[in-house]
Order: sequence, then C-alpha cells, then structure tokens
Amino acid sequence: MNKRITIYDLAKTLKVSPGTVSRSLNNHPSISDKTKQRVIAKANELGYKINKFASNLSSQKSNTIGVIVPKLNSNFMSTILAGIEKVVNEAGYSLIISQSLESMEKEKINSMTLFNSGVDAILVSLAYDTTDYEHFTPFIKHKIPLIFLDRVPNLPECLTLIIDNYLAGFEATEHLIEQGCKNILYIGGNQNRNVYLERFKGYRAALKKHGLDYSFDELLETDLDPRNIDEVITYIKNHPTPIDGLFVASDSFAAHCIKELKKVSFKIPEDIKVVGFNNDPISELISPSLTTINYPGYEMGVLAGQSVINQLKGNIDMQATNAISLRHELIIRESSTIK
Amino acid sequence: MNKRITIYDLAKTLKVSPGTVSRSLNNHPSISDKTKQRVIAKANELGYKINKFASNLSSQKSNTIGVIVPKLNSNFMSTILAGIEKVVNEAGYSLIISQSLESMEKEKINSMTLFNSGVDAILVSLAYDTTDYEHFTPFIKHKIPLIFLDRVPNLPECLTLIIDNYLAGFEATEHLIEQGCKNILYIGGNQNRNVYLERFKGYRAALKKHGLDYSFDELLETDLDPRNIDEVITYIKNHPTPIDGLFVASDSFAAHCIKELKKVSFKIPEDIKVVGFNNDPISELISPSLTTINYPGYEMGVLAGQSVINQLKGNIDMQATNAISLRHELIIRESSTIK
Repeated sequence: MNKRITIYDLAKTLKVSPGTVSRSLNNHPSISDKTKQRVIAKANELGYKINKFASNLSSQKSNTIGVIVPKLNSNFMSTILAGIEKVVNEAGYSLIISQSLESMEKEKINSMTLFNSGVDAILVSLAYDTTDYEHFTPFIKHKIPLIFLDRVPNLPECLTLIIDNYLAGFEATEHLIEQGCKNILYIGGNQNRNVYLERFKGYRAALKKHGLDYSFDELLETDLDPRNIDEVITYIKNHPTPIDGLFVASDSFAAHCIKELKKVSFKIPEDIKVVGFNNDPISELISPSLTTINYPGYEMGVLAGQSVINQLKGNIDMQATNAISLRHELIIRESSTIK
Repeated sequence: MNKRITIYDLAKTLKVSPGTVSRSLNNHPSISDKTKQRVIAKANELGYKINKFASNLSSQKSNTIGVIVPKLNSNFMSTILAGIEKVVNEAGYSLIISQSLESMEKEKINSMTLFNSGVDAILVSLAYDTTDYEHFTPFIKHKIPLIFLDRVPNLPECLTLIIDNYLAGFEATEHLIEQGCKNILYIGGNQNRNVYLERFKGYRAALKKHGLDYSFDELLETDLDPRNIDEVITYIKNHPTPIDGLFVASDSFAAHCIKELKKVSFKIPEDIKVVGFNNDPISELISPSLTTINYPGYEMGVLAGQSVINQLKGNIDMQATNAISLRHELIIRESSTIK
C-alpha cells in the first residue's frame, strides 16, 4: 500500500509552506489563483486525500449528507431520492445512500457507518422492524441534523416529513364504498410502521362512517413482497364472505394481485375493485389501470433536502418546525369503476 | 457545535492511558474484556467517532465499499445492488451508494467523495455521457480495487462484469425476424455506452444474416426516458416504411411504447411485435406480456461483490481476471408471437 500523502509532502514537493498548501486547498482569498491551481494540480497528481476529520475540526463540514432507506427497489423511494439529490447537490453537498433492507440490525450498522464517515446530516426512512431508536442518539447528541421521512418514529426532537396516511386510507376506502363495495379487505405492511397503521385506521374510519364496520372489517398483514402473492390470492379465493374490494398499501403489490386474480378468473373491476397506493408508473401501465393514491415523493424529497440545508445553514431553528405533511390525492382509474 | 471527542478525552474520563483506550477500541488481545467493555460503553456514551483516516493508516481498512450507479430508478439497478449488498455484508462490509444521475460531472464528484471518505473498494456503472476516466486514477494509483459492471469502459487495469450484449441483441432481433418482421427498428440509448452499441451491433448482424440489412436498418437513439415517449410514437407513426418490429433496449421504455402504440390503434403483436430488455417485473405485468432478454442482475451483483471481497482479501491476483461475462436468455412472451 502507498503511504498516505500529507500536506507536508505536498509542501515539500512544491517548495512552499504547509500553510500555503492548506490555504490553497481551502480556497483562502490570501492565496493567488495561480498558486492555488499549482497546489491542486499537484495534490491530484499525487493522490492527496482531504483529511475529512481534520478538516471537520476547523470547518465542521464534510459536504456529505447520508440517507438510510429501507430498500432501493421501489419507484417511490427512487423518486424521493431524486428530490433530495437535486436540492442538496445544488447547495454543494453530495449524497451517500445506504439501505437497511428492512432490518433494524442493518439500520444500526448503517447509522454507525454514516456517523463515522462524518456526514453533515442524515435523512432516514425506517426499516420494517425498527422498534428502538438508540442508534440515532449520536446524531442528536452531536447536533447533526436528523430528519425522518415517510416511515417515521415518534421522536419529539426530530423533524418528520409525511403525508396524511390516515386521510388517504379513509379516502381510498370511501371511494370503494361509493362504488358499491361492501366487503373490503385492507392489505398492508407491518402495523408497527406509522404508514401502514394509519392507512388501516383510515380504512376503519371509512367503514364506520358508512355503517360497514360490523359486517366486514379485515386486515391482511403481509410483507408486500410479490414472491408471497400466492398466500394472498389463496386467502381471497377461500374467504367465506366474497371479497368485493381491495385496498392495497402498495401499487406494485396491487398490480401483482390484479394479475394473479385475473388468472384465477376474477374480473377486475366487476368482481373485485382495487385501489393501490403511491401512483407508481406501473399503475398506469397495467390493465385495467389502477386507481391509487398519488404520493408526492419527489416533492417530499425536495422538502426534505431543503429542510436539511436550512438546518445546516442555520436558516431555521430546528425546534421550530416539527412535522411537515404533504398533500396526497386519490386518482380514479379503471380498476375501481365500471363504465 | 460540540467539540470532537478524542482518545485522550476518553482516557482522562476513564482514568486509563490513551494506549489502553486505543487498544480496547481496536479489540487488542492484551486488554481484558472487562476493560474493553468499559471503554466501548464510555466511547458510545460520549459519542466518540472512530477517526477513520488515522485508523486507516494502521489497519488500511474502513470496512466500507462505495458504489456509483447511473440512476437508482430501475428494478435492474436495485437488483444488482441487492446482490452486491448481500455478499459484502456477509463479509463484514457496509455499502454506500451514490448516483451519477447520468452525468460525468457528477460521477467525478461522487468519485472524489467516495475516495475521500476512505472506501476500501469501489464499484462503478458508468454515466450516460462519461467520456474520460481520469477521475478513477486515484483508485488505481492507490491500489484500491475498482470494478466496473454493466456499463464499462475500456480500461485494461480493471475488472469488468458484463453480459454479451452483442449476442443478446442478435438473438432478440433474430427472434423478431423468425416471427415474420421485416422492418425492425432498434430503440436504444447513448451509443457511447458499450451496452447500447453492442446491442445495436448484434441487431445489425442478425439483419445481415437474414439478408434484411439492405431493406431496413435503423437505429433510434433516445434517452429511454418515458417522458420523451411521444417523439418515439410520432416517429413510428409517420415512418414511410411501416415498422413491424421493435427491439427496445429497456423493458420500462418498451412497456411505455406498447401502451402508447395501443392508444393510437396499433395492435401488439399483430401490427408491431416488440422485444424489450432486462426482464423487469413490469414485463410480466403488462398486457400483452413482453418478450425480453433476461439480464441476471442479481447474479452480476453477487459476482461483483465476490470479486471485490476476493481482491480485498488478496485471494486472487487483480490482473488474473479481466472480464466476467454472464449468461443472458431470451424469454418469449405475448408481445412478439401470434398464437
């Protein structure tokens, strides 16, 4: 392995003082552009690495923002990331991303990795099974901005960005009721996560409002992984009360439901009406096209990015804003309506 | 901002020598488990950050592997990442991911960020417009393993992982010819990237083999962004020679083509037969289901992960293997065949 190049090596090679090298690399106004260029060229040539931690001690900045997301395999998540990336890049920050793969243990390791690499701020959407939040304490203790989005905990110190999942669940279910459904099944993810629990609460509230809560009120909790679709189809097929409406907490899973239900001769929307969630591109591409809740993921990413930059620049008081809620929208398509 | 906690602060608080703290944190056998636990507990309590660069100087390891991908918004890319993540996690490494958003300028910044955060190795799939590779020189110079996958440059020093895009393009096109297509349009991305150029070469070779290269031989280069689908549909609709076959270098774009062509009254597969690329889940969900090339993304990720771990452990000579090619497969579905 090569020896690590220091400012002193650069100074010696360039025949200038270490202070000149340091100031040049930090773009200090006391150094001429010509000298700066010479120093930077030589630093690149020799493969000088900025000592981020030494640099942090003076400037307190690494210009890097970390993100932990549950999984990178959804359009929804990549849309949020695109929004964050746009804003933080424009402000001169790089984004590094890690995935918890829905595991709290891995989320802990990711937190530590990002903390140790000296990120200036961190954005988190929680894993499926995260039940304690101790691993975020170092960020809070060191006043490193910590923002949660979509899947958020109940921590008073942190800013959260969400949509009104309760209301979205209510609207999706009420729409199915208005289309004549009486036995509506809610298919959601782990109820420990706010997003799935709130959607379920909204579903129940809609049933109650329309007097349907005594006849049929049912939750099917799954991991929303298409590989486990068979269980869900079997459940629907063999249900003693014929199910005539599905509210599914993910478009991708809803699309798989429709495909498999069609295979076993259910007509969509005639036999079963379906509403998904997120407004992923898939919802428009399948047949019948999928009624869904538009989740403004890109806008959420942009707002999360702006919040984090504001905090880093000291533009706003971290305590002043505690929760930002974005507007969702029910988009009615073919899967829930008969022409 | 809080002052950064040092080993000396820990030593003072714990009333032990700085050497004891350092050895405890490095799990040195000369220190008792009891002392180690005390030191680690206190380090956590005070929010001590491992000084990765100081630590690198002795152990030369950060246990972090960096990845630069063009965009995180495809199933294909997330599948590759899942494969990499699995292998490197099992070997005790964390993965940090950044996206170039198809821009060489951003790829350069990402390289620098990852180099500066002291990653032990880096995996790259090139941006759309990357034409020079200078920004990877620091990794090569410092013997930090650098592996390219899918979209790869022509650099003799680096391991590349690819599929045989030429052969895949040939097979996709020959299949369309065998189904009776005479005027087949290839819709691909930037020809500077090996994947799109090779698929095009394969397409041409198939036309030539079947004597069709003099009648119709046409490339439509696009950015494969669904937002620009209208141009493509207009192109097909107004083409003087009626196009009867499409070979599209991405399933997602092919799915959008099918949807929009159906809207303007083309019958798929009767009027136009379509073959996509990647075998994304969308290819099975749309109607008609999409004939495609199965790209073993997960397997590529696993192999890339294993290669990088092998290099880090010194198990294999970096020069010994230069290119790994994975097996693809034509999957025939409804979009290209009439029952």
